[in-house]
Amino acid sequence: MIKKITIVGIGLMGGSLAMQCRSKGIAAHIIGVDENPEHASDALSMHLVDEVLPLDDAIATSDVIVLTVPMNALVGLLPSVLDKVKQQVVLDMGSTKNILAKSVDAHANRGRFVATHPMWGTEYSGPRAAVEGAFENKAVILCDTEKTDADALDFVKDLYRKLNMHIIEMNAVDHDLHAAYVSHISHITSFALANTVLEKEREDKAIFEMASAGFESTVRLAKSNPDMWTPILMQNKDNVLDVLNEHISQLRKFKSCLEKENWDYLKELMLHANQIKRIIQ
Amino acid sequence: MIKKITIVGIGLMGGSLAMQCRSKGIAAHIIGVDENPEHASDALSMHLVDEVLPLDDAIATSDVIVLTVPMNALVGLLPSVLDKVKQQVVLDMGSTKNILAKSVDAHANRGRFVATHPMWGTEYSGPRAAVEGAFENKAVILCDTEKTDADALDFVKDLYRKLNMHIIEMNAVDHDLHAAYVSHISHITSFALANTVLEKEREDKAIFEMASAGFESTVRLAKSNPDMWTPILMQNKDNVLDVLNEHISQLRKFKSCLEKENWDYLKELMLHANQIKRIIQ
Repeated sequence: MIKKITIVGIGLMGGSLAMQCRSKGIAAHIIGVDENPEHASDALSMHLVDEVLPLDDAIATSDVIVLTVPMNALVGLLPSVLDKVKQQVVLDMGSTKNILAKSVDAHANRGRFVATHPMWGTEYSGPRAAVEGAFENKAVILCDTEKTDADALDFVKDLYRKLNMHIIEMNAVDHDLHAAYVSHISHITSFALANTVLEKEREDKAIFEMASAGFESTVRLAKSNPDMWTPILMQNKDNVLDVLNEHISQLRKFKSCLEKENWDYLKELMLHANQIKRIIQ
Repeated sequence: MIKKITIVGIGLMGGSLAMQCRSKGIAAHIIGVDENPEHASDALSMHLVDEVLPLDDAIATSDVIVLTVPMNALVGLLPSVLDKVKQQVVLDMGSTKNILAKSVDAHANRGRFVATHPMWGTEYSGPRAAVEGAFENKAVILCDTEKTDADALDFVKDLYRKLNMHIIEMNAVDHDLHAAYVSHISHITSFALANTVLEKEREDKAIFEMASAGFESTVRLAKSNPDMWTPILMQNKDNVLDVLNEHISQLRKFKSCLEKENWDYLKELMLHANQIKRIIQ
């Protein structure tokens, strides 16, 4: 069991991690660090954390420091945390990896850091969004593990195994490309779909009376927090642009079928899309 | 209680209706009609229906005939069913309404027909996709009700109230416009997103190892049946094209923000999309 774990940023990810550390007996003592006083107070009152400490005090007393702040804050925070660690393990849970990895490539304590991305989340944020049972049976990506000390890597693998996660290793460059396809583009399509329909709603308030479950499913990510998603898309700009261009060109194929009344090709496009059944059940 | 109900097309919708008619005691005897022998046999063995009859026999003996076949078949089927009814009530459950409504506008028995669209469905099809508890607490649209005999309208409203559905009345033209926004476009974006990612998978099999719940949510409609969706999009072509053009232009705003690194506007677009919270919980 981990003696003391520090979680920096007790929001959706950090709060859910704290909850699982508690319920699975992964850590004996959970320390929270959060710049937002309301989040810190909620984390204490919800008993997600045992105490809230200033960052430096928390680092000094902990075995492991988990960074779960938005990507823009993370890139500034990680080097300064590595400056202060000795034998502690540091990991992040951020959605992009390449810029973050580069920021500490030459750091003397690089070996203490493990770059991770648990493929779990919801469209909500803050400690009150924390979910019991989060992470369970999901994948977690560990990046550039050859740059990590063996003991730190083992420590983090053990942590994720206790969360019942499936560990995948890949380099940061591949990670960011794949994340653009299986996560970031989904958020952009949802945001854009919400704006498409909200635009129409300006002239026609009745439109949402008939919103279906299918609509809810495709648009729910549009509720996601822009403070979290702006830096993710910034840091993965090139990959996201490539996928977005491909997606727009796929949509144009549907548009062209409708315009030309090419119903055979329309059906063919949908039959091809059905192959996604191989991937998601 | 309805003495005898006929359901033509015992698939996802028809099968789910049969299930609810049974469990809620809505009908004493359920007759199935299906051109697909496998579906007819499944419907019998699953006890969704009490018997399977040829269409004409079923019409002659029933109080109400519910048409739940794909939209292309429906437009041919409805007038021929109306030819054969006397005092029976006929309703459909199709996803588009304008072309269908026009096809029977001048029919002598138009008054016996109620055009309906329950806003419930899944991405699966066939009788084995039938769901206990389907329709519950969802909306159902009744179109052009002024063209329906008062007793037929009351009959259908009573049926949907027993299914615990929320009844909304609107004309067929408005229905098709709204359906394009809150249902049909969601299917196109899902199909196109699936094709976007499947395209990438051709060169990189590993990409799906990290598919997240967010991805699954936005892409699940891509599993929908092309035989059902081709005629829906055909019959609602103009509305769907309008919404698709608007959606592509919304996506281009995201693209432009990324290209120009206009992070303030990107965040603004996402904040605007967050307003969808007013609509879906």
